[in-house]
Amino acid sequence: MANHDESYRYVDLNEARSFIERCMQSVGTKPSHAAALAEVLVKADYRGHYSHGINRLDVYLDDIKKKTTVSDTEPSIVKENVATGYVDGCNLLGPVVGKFCMELAIKKAKEAGIGWVVANGMYVIMLGTNPITCAAPAKDGDSFVLDMATSAVALGKVEIADRAETSIPQGWGVDSTGQITTDSKSVLQGGGLLPLGGSEETSGYKGYGLAMMVEMFCGILGNGDFGPNIRRWKDADRVANLGQCFVAIDPESFAPGFTDRMQSLIDICRGQQPAEGESEVLIAGDPERIHMKKVDRDGGLRYHINLINALDKIAVELGVTKLKTL
Amino acid sequence: MANHDESYRYVDLNEARSFIERCMQSVGTKPSHAAALAEVLVKADYRGHYSHGINRLDVYLDDIKKKTTVSDTEPSIVKENVATGYVDGCNLLGPVVGKFCMELAIKKAKEAGIGWVVANGMYVIMLGTNPITCAAPAKDGDSFVLDMATSAVALGKVEIADRAETSIPQGWGVDSTGQITTDSKSVLQGGGLLPLGGSEETSGYKGYGLAMMVEMFCGILGNGDFGPNIRRWKDADRVANLGQCFVAIDPESFAPGFTDRMQSLIDICRGQQPAEGESEVLIAGDPERIHMKKVDRDGGLRYHINLINALDKIAVELGVTKLKTL
Repeated sequence: MANHDESYRYVDLNEARSFIERCMQSVGTKPSHAAALAEVLVKADYRGHYSHGINRLDVYLDDIKKKTTVSDTEPSIVKENVATGYVDGCNLLGPVVGKFCMELAIKKAKEAGIGWVVANGMYVIMLGTNPITCAAPAKDGDSFVLDMATSAVALGKVEIADRAETSIPQGWGVDSTGQITTDSKSVLQGGGLLPLGGSEETSGYKGYGLAMMVEMFCGILGNGDFGPNIRRWKDADRVANLGQCFVAIDPESFAPGFTDRMQSLIDICRGQQPAEGESEVLIAGDPERIHMKKVDRDGGLRYHINLINALDKIAVELGVTKLKTL
Repeated sequence: MANHDESYRYVDLNEARSFIERCMQSVGTKPSHAAALAEVLVKADYRGHYSHGINRLDVYLDDIKKKTTVSDTEPSIVKENVATGYVDGCNLLGPVVGKFCMELAIKKAKEAGIGWVVANGMYVIMLGTNPITCAAPAKDGDSFVLDMATSAVALGKVEIADRAETSIPQGWGVDSTGQITTDSKSVLQGGGLLPLGGSEETSGYKGYGLAMMVEMFCGILGNGDFGPNIRRWKDADRVANLGQCFVAIDPESFAPGFTDRMQSLIDICRGQQPAEGESEVLIAGDPERIHMKKVDRDGGLRYHINLINALDKIAVELGVTKLKTL
């Protein structure tokens, strides 16, 4: 394999999954739970969301070690109806609860047309940006995959601007007095992110409303922590009793031919004339699709040498075999 | 009643409803259908959304007259499952189909926990801004009511700026080449509205993704027209085969005590310190609540004299009793 840039190493996807599994198992995580986490973290890297992938392994390890996340039980159904389920996530790893809930939602959708499952007591790493995810299949493996925070941007983007000492665009964040600012430091030091839409003038109240809607479907329906009661990210001194909501829809319960129409809508969007200076029109999920193709061409995930070194250090500490690079 | 401004007249809510009913019935609308439309238009005015209220009566009248909307039948269930319904709206008036679908969704939610109903062949006046609406009760009549287009703003806001000859904020719209512009004329003449979030820099792709999600739940699931096939507003030469999606959730299927927690979330939001220079923090539905209180204090809806004159003209043309002002 060609490796033109000395700052990067390539890693096989199966090896990345296996590494996460051996690390997690070494601190007492059940094999099936470790596998569920590995699947999600490696998928994040494969899709190009490196901030949500293997680089967060240390946080998950810490939480298992400090017992703010457990691995000695399984999620359980507290209450259910034909189309609904209410699940106790028992503060298990997020991907374990997520897999359980999504499978339950799909099972219910097959019977009732819709499956709506809400969980609490779930451990996920999040910043209270109340994300919305929605995916649908089209034809021949094509799909629509929306996965977005309802904040204007991720805090990480402000941090990157701060490190680069560049100003941030209007509409990303506010200072400690609630005024919109283009100074990253003011956002990071006592300020905050704006909701999608930014200022009132550009309809930021819509992003605020969407964030509250997500809070309602997750924390409020499920009786998880909500609003300012939510544990801060990496605040590992207590369990994260977060709510999450999983919905499965069987399109066959409605008009026949869903995937054909979905493909038609996707094709129409991609076929639009790009804005001047742009080369193509994408749909939600396309940037990730492009990234996955690149990984396939490369023959593996591309990790920075600093990340590899950090993972090697973890391996030594835990006494497991280091991550093998290509 | 005090009427300090000579440009306005006040109208009792029941009289406004009755006026719409007599106008619609005079062109052949079934009494129950006329009542459903009157309820929705007067509620829009009562909530302060005058652009979506009685001032649109002429469009509904035209569509009934030209038979692009019908009133000689009722919506019918094409397919149903325990938790789902697929409804043929038969190109009936939007509020007639909406009432039918929402009642069906609620009935299903009472049985299955969730009711998810998709309709096509529905007549609504819209601009393809793919709105999302979500409402939930809290305590003692308090509630969360989100009702938003997934575009950055409504086209009407650009039109208002154009009439006032002022520039529009960055992030509302683009010109005919797809470039962001602050010139209202460029947006109106061959340009277009931006999705919520505005430019790519401020995450406009999220609003685009949300708009596609709405398209999927409505046009795609229901096999209504979608994308560029959607009839343009006031393009009354063909029926508007639009899809819509109605979801009812029974909170009792999940954790007990929903309304208490909902109130708590609302109180937390309203109790936040306002941004410097602002006097209060509102939640979705509060501006409408404030407006309804004002109407109650005034004793009626406040209509501009030009609107009253236009409605008088309609009354004369249709041979019905004019709208009585207070």
